[in-house]
Amino acid sequence: MAKFKKIFSFILRLLSLAATVVAIVVMVRSRDSTQVLNLTFTAKYSNTPAFKYFVIAEAIASVYTIIVILLILCSESLLGRLIVILDMVITVLLSTSITAALAIAQVGKKGNSHAGWLPICGQVPKFCDQVTVSLICGFVAAVFYFVLLLISLHAVLSPIFAVKP
Amino acid sequence: MAKFKKIFSFILRLLSLAATVVAIVVMVRSRDSTQVLNLTFTAKYSNTPAFKYFVIAEAIASVYTIIVILLILCSESLLGRLIVILDMVITVLLSTSITAALAIAQVGKKGNSHAGWLPICGQVPKFCDQVTVSLICGFVAAVFYFVLLLISLHAVLSPIFAVKP
Repeated sequence: MAKFKKIFSFILRLLSLAATVVAIVVMVRSRDSTQVLNLTFTAKYSNTPAFKYFVIAEAIASVYTIIVILLILCSESLLGRLIVILDMVITVLLSTSITAALAIAQVGKKGNSHAGWLPICGQVPKFCDQVTVSLICGFVAAVFYFVLLLISLHAVLSPIFAVKP
Repeated sequence: MAKFKKIFSFILRLLSLAATVVAIVVMVRSRDSTQVLNLTFTAKYSNTPAFKYFVIAEAIASVYTIIVILLILCSESLLGRLIVILDMVITVLLSTSITAALAIAQVGKKGNSHAGWLPICGQVPKFCDQVTVSLICGFVAAVFYFVLLLISLHAVLSPIFAVKP
């Protein structure tokens, strides 16, 4: 059972690494142009602080995941308990990066008539599609990390429902 | 030491409850009006999905904190380990609510010239100030919960840096 858990955690880390890398690549390569009155405007992720934060957070998570995978391959138990704390920090980092980017993406898609912010996805649909794919990958990575954290916590906390007799 | 930790955790829960309640009250009461071409526009939190999510998340955290405080007062050890998991969920919830609201508040303050979104804080400064106060309270609550979680985890994980001899 412990062996199965370890292999499952390892696969989850590999999958979340793949998800964060794809999220970064798609977000960084996302761009689309539109012409307004003979002027060309290009939409790209670096124009929006929330998207920049998203890329930085996913990059930190990727580097962390690579380090942990290497550590696991080298030694099985080294700093095992510190990793639970760091996994928690990375889970929070990934979750916040998704919601910040999602909040802006929602304005990009629907606009906010009260604030006078018009939706831009009609003008730059390719950009919006790429951002959506990137956010989905980021969300998947965050879910993987959450499951990973629950597994780690389960190992150290079980039995969870222990009640004094 | 364990007694001190318990009292400290209890105080942290009370403080985070106060912070989330203040965040909700200030956010819900935040409004400001501006006149454009004889038409009056009112800025309020419910016009923005990210701010609505913020209020809902802070409300869930408040209710959860009240329940946990009552549980702690009634019984000291009941579901102690489940609370660590739930604390984690609440920490993630609070963190994401802050960043989503912050992403929108940043556009409200600075605008986004690339997307053609103008800043609105010049027109509705009172609203922006109130939202800022609410976000600070939410941030304080999230930090309290993070510390709370570290204390809980420390109790079950220590010694963190245990390395096999």
